[in-house]
Amino acid sequence: MTFTTKDFQRRMERALTQAADAGLTGVLVTPGPDLVYFLGYQPTAITERITMLVLDADHDPHLIVPLLERPDAEAAPGASAVTITDWADGTDPYAATARLLDPQGRYALSDSAWAMHLLGLQNALRETRYTSITGSLPMLRAVKDADEVERLAAAGAAAYEQIIGVRFAGRTETEIGTELARLLREHGHSQVDFTVVGSGPNGANPHHEMGDRVIAEGDMVVLDFGGLKDGYGSDTTRTVHVGEPTAKEREVFEIVKRAQQAGFEAVRPGVACQEIDRAARRVIEEAGYGKDFIHRTGHGIGLTTHEPPYMVEGEQRPLVPGMCFSIEPGIYLPGRFGVRIEDIVTVTENAGRRLNNTSHELRIVA
Amino acid sequence: MTFTTKDFQRRMERALTQAADAGLTGVLVTPGPDLVYFLGYQPTAITERITMLVLDADHDPHLIVPLLERPDAEAAPGASAVTITDWADGTDPYAATARLLDPQGRYALSDSAWAMHLLGLQNALRETRYTSITGSLPMLRAVKDADEVERLAAAGAAAYEQIIGVRFAGRTETEIGTELARLLREHGHSQVDFTVVGSGPNGANPHHEMGDRVIAEGDMVVLDFGGLKDGYGSDTTRTVHVGEPTAKEREVFEIVKRAQQAGFEAVRPGVACQEIDRAARRVIEEAGYGKDFIHRTGHGIGLTTHEPPYMVEGEQRPLVPGMCFSIEPGIYLPGRFGVRIEDIVTVTENAGRRLNNTSHELRIVA
Repeated sequence: MTFTTKDFQRRMERALTQAADAGLTGVLVTPGPDLVYFLGYQPTAITERITMLVLDADHDPHLIVPLLERPDAEAAPGASAVTITDWADGTDPYAATARLLDPQGRYALSDSAWAMHLLGLQNALRETRYTSITGSLPMLRAVKDADEVERLAAAGAAAYEQIIGVRFAGRTETEIGTELARLLREHGHSQVDFTVVGSGPNGANPHHEMGDRVIAEGDMVVLDFGGLKDGYGSDTTRTVHVGEPTAKEREVFEIVKRAQQAGFEAVRPGVACQEIDRAARRVIEEAGYGKDFIHRTGHGIGLTTHEPPYMVEGEQRPLVPGMCFSIEPGIYLPGRFGVRIEDIVTVTENAGRRLNNTSHELRIVA
Repeated sequence: MTFTTKDFQRRMERALTQAADAGLTGVLVTPGPDLVYFLGYQPTAITERITMLVLDADHDPHLIVPLLERPDAEAAPGASAVTITDWADGTDPYAATARLLDPQGRYALSDSAWAMHLLGLQNALRETRYTSITGSLPMLRAVKDADEVERLAAAGAAAYEQIIGVRFAGRTETEIGTELARLLREHGHSQVDFTVVGSGPNGANPHHEMGDRVIAEGDMVVLDFGGLKDGYGSDTTRTVHVGEPTAKEREVFEIVKRAQQAGFEAVRPGVACQEIDRAARRVIEEAGYGKDFIHRTGHGIGLTTHEPPYMVEGEQRPLVPGMCFSIEPGIYLPGRFGVRIEDIVTVTENAGRRLNNTSHELRIVA
């Protein structure tokens, strides 16, 4: 499954539509997830030598690269969708890049572009104006193609089904987390970014990763794991219990499960992102645990694990078919235990579709 | 061997002296090698959340960090040399950072600072001006402490002595390079960045890394290898021969060896960097191979493998005790073979000192 020239062209066209809607001349893209998105191109190392994709409505897309890196750029999956120009060591790269820009233009620029390059362009063109992509076009990569949705699907399922078969009691969080990371790699992850194992009271701290605590019979255990598979992020949370849970633990678990379901059922095109947060939060508040749900309900996911759209109070932008994000409510009882359930969901033409399909039931582990 | 608060303070003082000499108010440092240099601090991930060290002559040094990362910052080796302030999610990080700056100030900013952060500061303070560190303070990290010189010393020697004992003939460049990388790790490298193996005609292309070519009796082989050891770069080149060399091969080898020695002997405080290039190049030109020495003579090395000072025509800044850089002349005969010899050298009070001490003689391998 590879992206075609047509995929890259469609993304560039969508970006120009968004830029025009925001009153911008175009978009300037530097190495990082933005450039991977538009061309599938990732220079071997991001160095002091400027590489920039220039998108604007009046010209064909141009990619300017250091001469030494031209062969790599020409081999990029999206290379045939752009005109490639180069600059050589000893010449002025900002003069060469500036020739591709409208001197009176207003451009959105990749967040992580080097300040040195922005300063170089500001010196070369005094009237041009810049904003960050996150500031002006936050939804640039938010709507996914069908192929992207496919890569985001079911990334952590097999590892979860296997980890709940291992023995938890008597082993440290780090042992379980290491095993989980191994399983994620075995099932196709090229990179594992986090394996949270929050047992007992550690589960009540959403920033806890894993530690030396020995897991015991009677513990709730929050498992939150993800990384990169096929170049796209994965992120799943399930909460399991070692042995039989108490009535209180079951009660809290069921509230979180209902909250996750309520958030999911609120998904449909045109609904504001904050409505997903509100739907999940309402269930937890009505059950009397509102003050124990201490983070937003979700984040977008794609080439990076955390990106727009955010499911958070105040985010009034509407859901659009193809957006992909987490829905992950939780309840955290300090000193006691925590519960969180997280699925990645995509927006379809009329509802939401879960990309993780493992069961939400409370699984009992040994 | 760890750096102390005093080491970090001395570096900050030196930076402020340089800034004052350049007519700057101060220096703004973001995560990357610059921040490692001043505080030994490397955030786990470089994200959209701004972290910045503010150095200026009128105030104590301040480090501003995201609230979530404050514990990590407080644990940094240089933490006690700075006042740490934080900003919380939901507040304006640029307003908080701007309060640490002189609104009329002119600052040098880390090259790789995110453009998004520079734009945020430019919006918060309309009169403040910025330049890149490379543009205005290129020698910021060029003069090394004694401890830094120690870390740069002899990094590749043991691996070289072992690799020349293995069989070359009949094996591919990639096999030799992989073995060399293993030896570098075995002898303390935490990271191997390059193992160039340029055999026969491949040695005549200084950009060749390694490939499927099977090395044969009669080949010259350029070995150029390095990475990170104790957090500092390493970079060594030696050229070896498989079996007995021809008279022509010996002749070219001896010219490069003499050129390297001439560059080395030109090193002393106060001499312009370009004089090192000229001294090495003159030997090669006088031998009639000037057009075959197609790159500069050397580059600085420290927390990164390529950094100022550069030993190149036009670089008129003077050598200063403590600077560390490569001297690596070469002769490249297209379609035939190449020779390059590279040592890292430091400037002492009155001369140069080699940090690689392995022999420069032409070693015959099997």
